[in-house]
Amino acid sequence: MSLAKAYAAASATSPLAPFQIERRAVGPHDVQIEIAYCGICHSDLHQVRNEWGNSMYPMVPGHEIVGHVTAVGAHVKGFKPGDLAGVGCMVDSCRTCPSCQRQLEQFCEKGCAWSYNSTEMDRKTPTFGGYSSSVVVDEAFTLKVSPKLDLAAAAPLLCAGITTYSPLRQWKTKKGDKVGVVGLGGLGHMAVKLAAAMGAEVTMLSTSKSKEADARKLGAHHFALTSDDATFKQLAGHFDLIIDTISAPHDYNKYLGLLRVEGAMVLLGVPPEPTPVAAIALIGGRKILTGSLIGGIQETQEMLDFCAEHGIVSDIELIPVQQVNEAYGRMLKNDVRYRFVLDMKTL
Amino acid sequence: MSLAKAYAAASATSPLAPFQIERRAVGPHDVQIEIAYCGICHSDLHQVRNEWGNSMYPMVPGHEIVGHVTAVGAHVKGFKPGDLAGVGCMVDSCRTCPSCQRQLEQFCEKGCAWSYNSTEMDRKTPTFGGYSSSVVVDEAFTLKVSPKLDLAAAAPLLCAGITTYSPLRQWKTKKGDKVGVVGLGGLGHMAVKLAAAMGAEVTMLSTSKSKEADARKLGAHHFALTSDDATFKQLAGHFDLIIDTISAPHDYNKYLGLLRVEGAMVLLGVPPEPTPVAAIALIGGRKILTGSLIGGIQETQEMLDFCAEHGIVSDIELIPVQQVNEAYGRMLKNDVRYRFVLDMKTL
Repeated sequence: MSLAKAYAAASATSPLAPFQIERRAVGPHDVQIEIAYCGICHSDLHQVRNEWGNSMYPMVPGHEIVGHVTAVGAHVKGFKPGDLAGVGCMVDSCRTCPSCQRQLEQFCEKGCAWSYNSTEMDRKTPTFGGYSSSVVVDEAFTLKVSPKLDLAAAAPLLCAGITTYSPLRQWKTKKGDKVGVVGLGGLGHMAVKLAAAMGAEVTMLSTSKSKEADARKLGAHHFALTSDDATFKQLAGHFDLIIDTISAPHDYNKYLGLLRVEGAMVLLGVPPEPTPVAAIALIGGRKILTGSLIGGIQETQEMLDFCAEHGIVSDIELIPVQQVNEAYGRMLKNDVRYRFVLDMKTL
Repeated sequence: MSLAKAYAAASATSPLAPFQIERRAVGPHDVQIEIAYCGICHSDLHQVRNEWGNSMYPMVPGHEIVGHVTAVGAHVKGFKPGDLAGVGCMVDSCRTCPSCQRQLEQFCEKGCAWSYNSTEMDRKTPTFGGYSSSVVVDEAFTLKVSPKLDLAAAAPLLCAGITTYSPLRQWKTKKGDKVGVVGLGGLGHMAVKLAAAMGAEVTMLSTSKSKEADARKLGAHHFALTSDDATFKQLAGHFDLIIDTISAPHDYNKYLGLLRVEGAMVLLGVPPEPTPVAAIALIGGRKILTGSLIGGIQETQEMLDFCAEHGIVSDIELIPVQQVNEAYGRMLKNDVRYRFVLDMKTL
């Protein structure tokens, strides 16, 4: 066992504050990582404040983890001390159920071990996330990060990156496909970059004209204002795929009207209430409404490799860990372009 | 031109009554069919009563048409007088748009010519359906019907058959797949027969225990009572595919919970109001909610051939055309197992 510095929430109403945790001894299949950077995901905030009702305290959030390997177990083959490494939303799963065998560990039938606010697969040992100086993770859940990428800006790839990459791959995005991205935030900005790198013709769909310049800078070829009803007429039947990153209430039916026959709209955000869907919006053109949740470990590695090949990282604001509570406040006002990353050497 | 006897509605509030229509002269690509039988689809009733707000009168309904070829045009290659033939929901389309080129004429971008309550592609000539003694249809929209099938009972295949066959094929139903069919009516009973013939393990999902015996007789391997909440726990994650034939209000989210990871639920019915869908019901397990509308002409032929091979027809109640208004009344009470078919020789 080793001690690690961390930032933790003691309760749903406590600000995050310095804390000390234990990390397990490096087992034969384990990789020990000195954490260099950890991205702040909106779900960190939800869980710290127990907005999903399943929070366990003390909680050390963080699942966009990158750093350097400091030790490896005897059976570890893919990593050695000094290597770059990443850890995303999961640190283990049952590895035998149909979902795990299909490399969809996020849907492990036994329930995977999330990187924090969860337990190891023993269902007893709590997991602590990346707002910490180090972590010990099984090699099977440790990702390789290319030295070609800016390490701090690569951190958000571990969640925001895979969350948007996976649906683009599931729906076989290819050169010339028309992809709409709804909402320009942490997820939306990654969706634009990734879809554009796959050769898609990308349209940013946003309620705010002020997002246009940024959207184009990120790689969007077009911009359409969703506060203008004319957009829904002009672009009717236009898109092969819509990636919907919005968690605020909005009318899915209008966006379904923008899909071509057999087009798909993938929900990544969870609005506070269920959204009324008209059957006819799906039946006419046999359109697809679906969702996606991060991605499996193999696909996460594929995404990191894709990003290295295409020079893609997140747009980030790097902050010292002491500013994490302030950053949470700013995230609630969408005042970040587009992801906060904690510099863990400030811990 | 030729004159044809028919049954027509003069207005949204008129009962269907004897009427005379003109059928066009047999053009070089046309097939003239003496109609033997015409199924009654629930959409006939909706349109006769202008419940979709787009009705044109006088209206001769009917798009489950089978009969014998009486004449063919000079360029017709696939039919000759005396052959059996069928006509479904469409009699023409633009044939050049992307949907038509993909054999999805039902989604023709110019709007296909429906078999009734529509116009030919000239957008002027009204179309009249199968409650009639004869019809003249372009060969490209005429289907071959095998003499192996009971002709009267084959009529509903032209709508109820293809409507359920198409989503089973779209979602690649294969031997051993677990298919749930929601609702046992005209569509549901065909979905059970077809899915079972494809080798699927079929479960009838119904609110009424009284449907169990029939469901099993039609080929369902299991029956689950959807009025019992325990069903939704016992069968959580069970199905590869759910075919939802219900037009009454019901909670899609509960049924989405019955799907496996990446399973699909296909809506065929249109409830009166949009149905609230929880994003998380789709995101957890990246499940698919979609719809389907009849099928293209090529696939309709494939379905008819499949039915001939497997000896599948509809369960019908054959009635004289004079009982059509009474049949409509009984359909509103779900008092038919499972499709009325008009015997056109009674006209």
